[in-house]
Order: sequence, then C-alpha cells, then structure tokens
Amino acid sequence: MKIYHSIKDIQRDILAQKARGLSIGFVPTMGALHRGHLSLLERSVKENDISICSIFVNPIQFNHKQDLEKYPRSPEEDCKKLDNAGCDIVFAPSAGEMYPEEVKEHYDFGQIERVMEGEHRPGHFNGVAVVVKRLFDICMPHKAYFGEKDFQQLAIIKALVEQQNMSVEIMGCPIIREGDGLAMSSRNVRLSPEERSIAPAIFKTLNQIQQKAGQEPLQETIRKAKAYLNSLPGMKVEYIQITDEQSLMPVESWDDANQIRAFIALFLGDVRLIDNLKIIYGL
Amino acid sequence: MKIYHSIKDIQRDILAQKARGLSIGFVPTMGALHRGHLSLLERSVKENDISICSIFVNPIQFNHKQDLEKYPRSPEEDCKKLDNAGCDIVFAPSAGEMYPEEVKEHYDFGQIERVMEGEHRPGHFNGVAVVVKRLFDICMPHKAYFGEKDFQQLAIIKALVEQQNMSVEIMGCPIIREGDGLAMSSRNVRLSPEERSIAPAIFKTLNQIQQKAGQEPLQETIRKAKAYLNSLPGMKVEYIQITDEQSLMPVESWDDANQIRAFIALFLGDVRLIDNLKIIYGL
Repeated sequence: MKIYHSIKDIQRDILAQKARGLSIGFVPTMGALHRGHLSLLERSVKENDISICSIFVNPIQFNHKQDLEKYPRSPEEDCKKLDNAGCDIVFAPSAGEMYPEEVKEHYDFGQIERVMEGEHRPGHFNGVAVVVKRLFDICMPHKAYFGEKDFQQLAIIKALVEQQNMSVEIMGCPIIREGDGLAMSSRNVRLSPEERSIAPAIFKTLNQIQQKAGQEPLQETIRKAKAYLNSLPGMKVEYIQITDEQSLMPVESWDDANQIRAFIALFLGDVRLIDNLKIIYGL
Repeated sequence: MKIYHSIKDIQRDILAQKARGLSIGFVPTMGALHRGHLSLLERSVKENDISICSIFVNPIQFNHKQDLEKYPRSPEEDCKKLDNAGCDIVFAPSAGEMYPEEVKEHYDFGQIERVMEGEHRPGHFNGVAVVVKRLFDICMPHKAYFGEKDFQQLAIIKALVEQQNMSVEIMGCPIIREGDGLAMSSRNVRLSPEERSIAPAIFKTLNQIQQKAGQEPLQETIRKAKAYLNSLPGMKVEYIQITDEQSLMPVESWDDANQIRAFIALFLGDVRLIDNLKIIYGL
C-alpha cells in the first residue's frame, strides 16, 4: 500500500494506472476508520482494479470549532486497517496542501441543501462539496463510495457530480451498525459509557417509526418518537423528519411519496449523532 | 409490475427487453420478504434497467421436510412490497413448472460445499445450485444479487457460475439487521417472543469474536463463544467457525489468512438460524 501526502505525487501515480487501463475506486474519509468505512473499501476492492482511500479531516465542513478539534484522529491504526482490507493507495494531505489559498467556491444545490443537516449546520455542505470536488479532481476515480448514514450528503454529492458534469459514478452503500444497532460513526468513541448504552435508542426509534408506518397519522408518530428520545438522559433531538428520498422534502402522510426515509439528528451529551432508515410502506 | 408463473411467458418478455438493449437485474428469493430482500432489490433497481424478482420455495434445497412445510409464505404481501420497491417483473413458478421431471443434476464444488452448511445440511447446496442454474437460464440476468447472510451459498453460486461459464455477474450484498442486531431472516417470524428476545445474542457474540481477534488464542475465543450461546435457554450451537473468506477452511490463528470471517449456526428452539461477520484484524 502506497501513502501519498502530495497532490502532485499521487496524481502522477494515478495517471500511470489509468494509462494502463485500470479502473479506480475511491473512498473519501476523515479517518478514525471503523467497519462502516471498511465496508465501502471492501466494495471498492471488489469493483475496481485500484482502490484509493483518502484520510483528510476537512476543516471547512465543520461549523463548530470544538467539533473539529475533538474529531478523533488515528492515522497509524487507519493505515494498518486499510492495508489489511486491500487498499492500494492512501491519500493523506495536509490542510495546506488541500487549501493553499482561501476557499472561494460557493455551490448552490437548492432545497436539498437547505433542509435537515443543511438547516442545522450552516456552511457544512458547501465545505463537503468543495473538498469532494477537489478530491475527485485529484484522484480521478471511476467510482466513489459513500455511506448512506450521511444520506443527505450522498444526495448533495450526486447533485455536485451532475452540476459539474463529472464522470465519476457515485455509489451509495448501506449503513453498517454496531452489535446493538447503533450506526457506526467515528464520533461514537466520544460517548461516555452511559451515553453509549443509551445511543441504540436512535435506531430502535427508527424501527418503531417503520412499524407505525401506515398505522397512525405520520405527525403523531414523529411527535411520539421525539418525546421518547427527549425523555432519555442527555438526549436532545435536533430533528426527526420523514421525507421523500429524492427531494428530501418532508412528506405529510405515509403515502405522500413513492420512496420515503426517516431521519434523526440529536445530541447525546455534547456528541451529535445522526441516523436514518428507508421506510417501506406495508413492511 | 408484471407477474409470471410460466417459464415460457417470462422468457418471451425478458428476451424482448434484452433485444431492446436493456440490462436485467435478478433477485432470487423464497418469498416471505423482509428488508434484507428489499435491499437486494433496491440495489438491482439502481444498477439495471429491468429488475426481476423470483419467489419460489425450492423444495429440493430443504433437508428436513418439516423445515420446508413450516417455511413462511406470504405471496400477496410479497408482491405488494416488491411493487412498492420498484420491481418490474415477478417470477413465481410452481414446483411442477420448475421440476417437470426428477432432478438428476449433481454438482461438485469441492471443499467449499463440504464444510459448515454443507456438512450439516446434506444435499442443501446441490438443491441451491440446481435451482439457481435453472433460474439463471430462465431469466438470463446481467447481474444477480445475493445477501451475505448466506455467505457460503454466495461462494457456491460464484463457483457454479465459473464452472458453468455463465455470463451473469454475482453481486454479494451486506447483511441487513433488525433494530437489535438480529440478522433479517424469513425464519425469524417462527421464533416465540422469548426466543426472539434471546436471538440478538448471535450477532452480539460475533461482535465479541471481533473484539477478541488478536487478543487471545482463536480456539479459546471459539470455545467461550460456544459455551456462552449454549448457556442461553433453548439455544444449541451447531457450529462456530472462523475461516478463510475464499477457501472457507477454518483458520488456526487470527493471522492465518488475509481475509477471515466468523460463522455461527445454531438452533433456537426448533428454528435454525445462521449469521456471520467479517473479522478485521486490528479493528
């Protein structure tokens, strides 16, 4: 496994691979890798000749300085895991390498960037779009892999690729969960043991929403879910939304759209957690 | 969504689609559909022009008559779910349509069919290979989707396709789990409420094995896991194995192979359940 820190060096390598006709799979990460990241890499390894993983804690997508500072970092362990999982190339640039000058790009994705995470994390998706655009330009992948845990981010990235006429294919991959259902997240390590024991209530609540689908008015289900989660010690719901999977706009009733998905964002202590579940009417 | 019961009718339709240059994705099932099946269909819908789902409880892959008789069936609900999830064509043949004459084929897949499920369910994989070969010949898919819950079955089907020089691409897809970690299975509905509350111990134990990887001798981990599961009311372990992902042969130590996976098969009351987890050294 090769590790590059410089854009110039990795590009020379990738161009050589592409000149040989090899296909490139790409998994962008912020490090602190868990089984969720590795499932993306696993799929990339299956589907491409060469798999690249980037490790870059992107400062411009954090809307709270503290969240950026506390974001877990474990570069040595990360590289060991990637090597074991069959990664060919790691790209681990410094912030200076990625952003030699002040970032001036501003993207407009319309309504999908204004709801949910977009509403609660101002500037977040622009930061995501800027870094993903640059990483794609650097790594020139045929396919890039993203987890559905950040479902809205996935929608933003698909919109980015379409808007910018990029040739990369965006592959959304299922959420990977801990033994008790908690969605894997690098932030989970920041939970206290007590908080960690409460956290599975998020996925349990999403399953509860699935069970109620079509059984009671949708607003009633959301109200109860919110009340339940807010009643747990240290939990503070930011939003619970049930939206159309394409537009990400809230639906009024269970059969308002063909494909709907439930989203939860909350604070548990000072750690912000998100999760989501596709709701299948009649399941 | 179109529903066919006859081989002749569905083939006429599929040949017409293929003549138009459309790509065909295929999800073979035994019905009693849950979110796991639907995740396969979801991926097929993303990756192909036309998605076909078969519903056929294949008698020749059951090695116990009772298991076949008790296998849950819900054709009407299944069709509703498939329609909602974007399926284009359902193939639901009778046993007489699939097996007008006595089945005489016998496949040999070597060691991968003799371990684990192969050892404990004599004839099972031959029955799987026979039905999958026939379904592929009927539906002529470009891609076919299988869940990694039946990881050994996935290996058998890849071997079948290679052996028979079939042109279909086999897509392995991640295990989908209930809110408490239990792997989705059509058989889960047969568990009593008490059994259902114990069942998540299977996935918990797999996670325990992951945590112990590299920390203690592998045989010690297996021994403890077996003792723990056997101590739970109504649980009787059939096997716990940690194997090379390719050969499916048991490994002696944690670093015996590049890619290893842990497998559990057990009875809970009279319901047989299986699950598995990729073990990542150093995770």
